[in-house]
Amino acid sequence: MAAIVRRFRIDLGYDGTDFYGSQRQRGVRTVQEVVEDGLSRLSNGAVSLSFAGRTDRGVHAIGQVASVDLRWQRNAEALRYALDEKTPPDVSIVGVRPVGAGFHARFSASQREYHYRVWNAAVPPVLSRRFCWHVRADLDLTRLNDAAAALVGRKDFASLAGDGLGVPTSLADCTRRVTLAEWRALPEEWDRASSQFLEFRVRADRFLPHMVRTMVGNMVEVGHGIRTTEWFESMLAARDRRVAVAPAPPQGLVLWSVEYPEGAES
Amino acid sequence: MAAIVRRFRIDLGYDGTDFYGSQRQRGVRTVQEVVEDGLSRLSNGAVSLSFAGRTDRGVHAIGQVASVDLRWQRNAEALRYALDEKTPPDVSIVGVRPVGAGFHARFSASQREYHYRVWNAAVPPVLSRRFCWHVRADLDLTRLNDAAAALVGRKDFASLAGDGLGVPTSLADCTRRVTLAEWRALPEEWDRASSQFLEFRVRADRFLPHMVRTMVGNMVEVGHGIRTTEWFESMLAARDRRVAVAPAPPQGLVLWSVEYPEGAES
Repeated sequence: MAAIVRRFRIDLGYDGTDFYGSQRQRGVRTVQEVVEDGLSRLSNGAVSLSFAGRTDRGVHAIGQVASVDLRWQRNAEALRYALDEKTPPDVSIVGVRPVGAGFHARFSASQREYHYRVWNAAVPPVLSRRFCWHVRADLDLTRLNDAAAALVGRKDFASLAGDGLGVPTSLADCTRRVTLAEWRALPEEWDRASSQFLEFRVRADRFLPHMVRTMVGNMVEVGHGIRTTEWFESMLAARDRRVAVAPAPPQGLVLWSVEYPEGAES
Repeated sequence: MAAIVRRFRIDLGYDGTDFYGSQRQRGVRTVQEVVEDGLSRLSNGAVSLSFAGRTDRGVHAIGQVASVDLRWQRNAEALRYALDEKTPPDVSIVGVRPVGAGFHARFSASQREYHYRVWNAAVPPVLSRRFCWHVRADLDLTRLNDAAAALVGRKDFASLAGDGLGVPTSLADCTRRVTLAEWRALPEEWDRASSQFLEFRVRADRFLPHMVRTMVGNMVEVGHGIRTTEWFESMLAARDRRVAVAPAPPQGLVLWSVEYPEGAES
């Protein structure tokens, strides 16, 4: 008996350290490749996965969402467990459920949230070194939040898009709606001195390539006192990638969660 | 001009995943080896390091302390920085300071604190997998703490010492004073579902080999409801390693801090 093809939503996380990003690329290890390989072995056929958010090489996710059409006869929890077994330990399959044919992980999503962690201390972190950017010079939380406030709203973010090599992005429309942009110090729970973690949380409808890391790289200049909030605002207003400084490194970034409008899965 | 030999206290941490424990062993990578090698290159001579706590293969530390006699002309912060540069990224040199000749990292210590983390959920953790034990079946925090309460006090811990292979320990005196033994759920800050972290904190004057991991392995039996607190108490009272179950795996354990009596460094 041939199983019918159904669409599934897969919630997953990964430690991005040893991946060349989420999207399949020839000759390198990617999240898409290892998850598609696991699904192919389980369903005896080719599968094609769509992710809610594209993450770069070295970027992590705890709340990534994928959609896929799959031949599978057993229930969704059996698929979750089997896929978790078939994928390597740096991928974690958090949930699987059947969804309607109208659901698409990327195009149905209404909001994405990313967190970026900076370890702000003279001494490097120990247990957390794979998940943060170590910044030695003192950062001022108030100054960071003054810059972050300038990011909130529906704006053209061309200054923060692209690869940071001084080449303007080729994206036609860089307008995005940012609904949250806030820094806080983490409570002292995880590492002995984890109050040295400064965490940036940002939520938007969609993000441009390198957008969160470029936000962070530029806010940190303000947090240091090297540049002012006024400079940050004028950099944004210029809508020109060449006026912004380099993006922050990838290992501090985590795709935290993705939201869908009510009824998207039916 | 030959620098005089001075004694230093070194505070350090390490991600134990890729180390065969703290103590030097022929042919394998150990914390002692990489730190001694770094110090030897900085001082142009052989050095011998003493650690406050011996940690097993795969066990982490954020508050390890070492003492060492060293030829070093510059100040202590220069030594910290240089040693941090000379050691691999999974070791972090947190602090260095000159101490008196009476200070010994191991023999001067009055208290050690370890933390052990259990990830209690059906689904594996993502960013934290190298630093916890994944236990799928539900654990009851009240039952865990009922068992933990039996550990507090000055007692003979022979039931919890040794390698867990049924061979009684050869240690002459297994009496230790435990001053804290407590489980709690971590606040939801680090991973998206980090309230699924159950953390055991234990403090004692000294610990026996495998003692914390064997405590945890046996308390988890009670937390599951497989065994009772009365069983746990009688297991302890038996002073016989053969009545206890196996130790918990190493990756959940972190040497958190070491305390010294006032004046120990002078």
